[in-house]
Amino acid sequence: MHRIFVDGSIPDTGQTLEIAGEEAAHAVRVKRVSPGDHLGLMDGAGVLAEATAEQVIKGGKRDGPALIVRIDSRSEVPWPGVAPQVEVLSATPKGSRVDELVDGLSQAGAASWSPLHTARGVVDPRDAKLARLERIAREAAKQCARPWMLRIGPQQSFARAIEPDGAHVVVADATGGPWVGSMNDGRRLRLLVGPEGGWTGDELAGATRAGATIARFGVHTMRIEVAAVAACAVLMSHGAPARAPTTVRNNPVSKPEEQPR
Amino acid sequence: MHRIFVDGSIPDTGQTLEIAGEEAAHAVRVKRVSPGDHLGLMDGAGVLAEATAEQVIKGGKRDGPALIVRIDSRSEVPWPGVAPQVEVLSATPKGSRVDELVDGLSQAGAASWSPLHTARGVVDPRDAKLARLERIAREAAKQCARPWMLRIGPQQSFARAIEPDGAHVVVADATGGPWVGSMNDGRRLRLLVGPEGGWTGDELAGATRAGATIARFGVHTMRIEVAAVAACAVLMSHGAPARAPTTVRNNPVSKPEEQPR
Repeated sequence: MHRIFVDGSIPDTGQTLEIAGEEAAHAVRVKRVSPGDHLGLMDGAGVLAEATAEQVIKGGKRDGPALIVRIDSRSEVPWPGVAPQVEVLSATPKGSRVDELVDGLSQAGAASWSPLHTARGVVDPRDAKLARLERIAREAAKQCARPWMLRIGPQQSFARAIEPDGAHVVVADATGGPWVGSMNDGRRLRLLVGPEGGWTGDELAGATRAGATIARFGVHTMRIEVAAVAACAVLMSHGAPARAPTTVRNNPVSKPEEQPR
Repeated sequence: MHRIFVDGSIPDTGQTLEIAGEEAAHAVRVKRVSPGDHLGLMDGAGVLAEATAEQVIKGGKRDGPALIVRIDSRSEVPWPGVAPQVEVLSATPKGSRVDELVDGLSQAGAASWSPLHTARGVVDPRDAKLARLERIAREAAKQCARPWMLRIGPQQSFARAIEPDGAHVVVADATGGPWVGSMNDGRRLRLLVGPEGGWTGDELAGATRAGATIARFGVHTMRIEVAAVAACAVLMSHGAPARAPTTVRNNPVSKPEEQPR
């Protein structure tokens, strides 16, 4: 069954929905979806549905293809109750390594990833790159039928990232002790991973003042994309899940903010 | 300081050592090491040394370059006492993904990786590929100055891999419960990661009969190279280290065995 990612909300059973944009173009032109075909829909925020294609609009030069589908069944899947929610903010690795990062975090089950502006970071991704990463996260969600998609947030400043805002902020650094389950107090977790050159003393001091925990997630130096996946897996394996699944949707990393440079 | 990987043992301070092969060729031809240069040596099994180049042999058509060095200082670094030793055996991912796997496991701090022959696995690496992976593990060890290198073992059969041989065997599978610290009983850990198609019922039943623990390391389906890194990081983050560092060197995965096909 072909799966389609829906921007916006998926209506109730029996209702119809018009799907346009890239996902419709792919379904119509590449997958050759025809009226009567059964489709899987997902919104990346816990809603899965099955639907039947009712009408296929091929589109012309000005408008792309569209699909009208009828919802056959709809279910809301709660945030996996077995693991804490982890928002990841990291320095951006160069080239295709950022794709590996987003793909790996999707598989590991992180709630979101946002690029973090750090003193020693060398790459600040542009909006076009973030849009491409969003597509990678969608593909990863479709491939593993992940009802909650990894959200890609806008770039954040370090000062903003260490403000707790209801989360327990964890800064990955070799100077910290190993993360243990008792450090999980039921708040959602925000993991910060630094650039290859490491955090500055000022950044670590600022994080500590803001109440963050400095923790170590391995015995060696790791590259950003490996460190983020390893640390996310470790955080998710210890302790109780965060309380409210809705925090992913209203995640502070999804709010636009002023860029620091 | 240029680092050289030494096959075999590094002698005591004051002794000389002749280095030949690929590492010597790289040092002489690419790095242009000259007499008097200071070098770092490592054997990948805990020994680090500093040395001075005494003689550079350029080599001819028949013999490659060689280097004679004098050992200035030598230290033995024990296996990192902060984390359990994890031997990883996994199905082999396709193409360059196996390179990512070995590189990621090196960074995460696994003791060894060996290809595992499984019922649904699609790739069985040849010796040439294993030699290339050995080079990747060496480069990763040099890059993060890891005194204990990730060992690359020969392919193993599933039947052999689940024989405990003094280790606690852990099979990564979605049907298991989450790994918790109390499952670490101080034995070294052997992690088995299956192919994309999953384990067969027979494999899981056989592992359970042999006393292995079936455990889950995430909430989603993960590709082999992501699952192995995530699970290794989780295993190393929980509980006490294994007792004897020497088990890495005398690791059963390093013994040649008959290939199952």
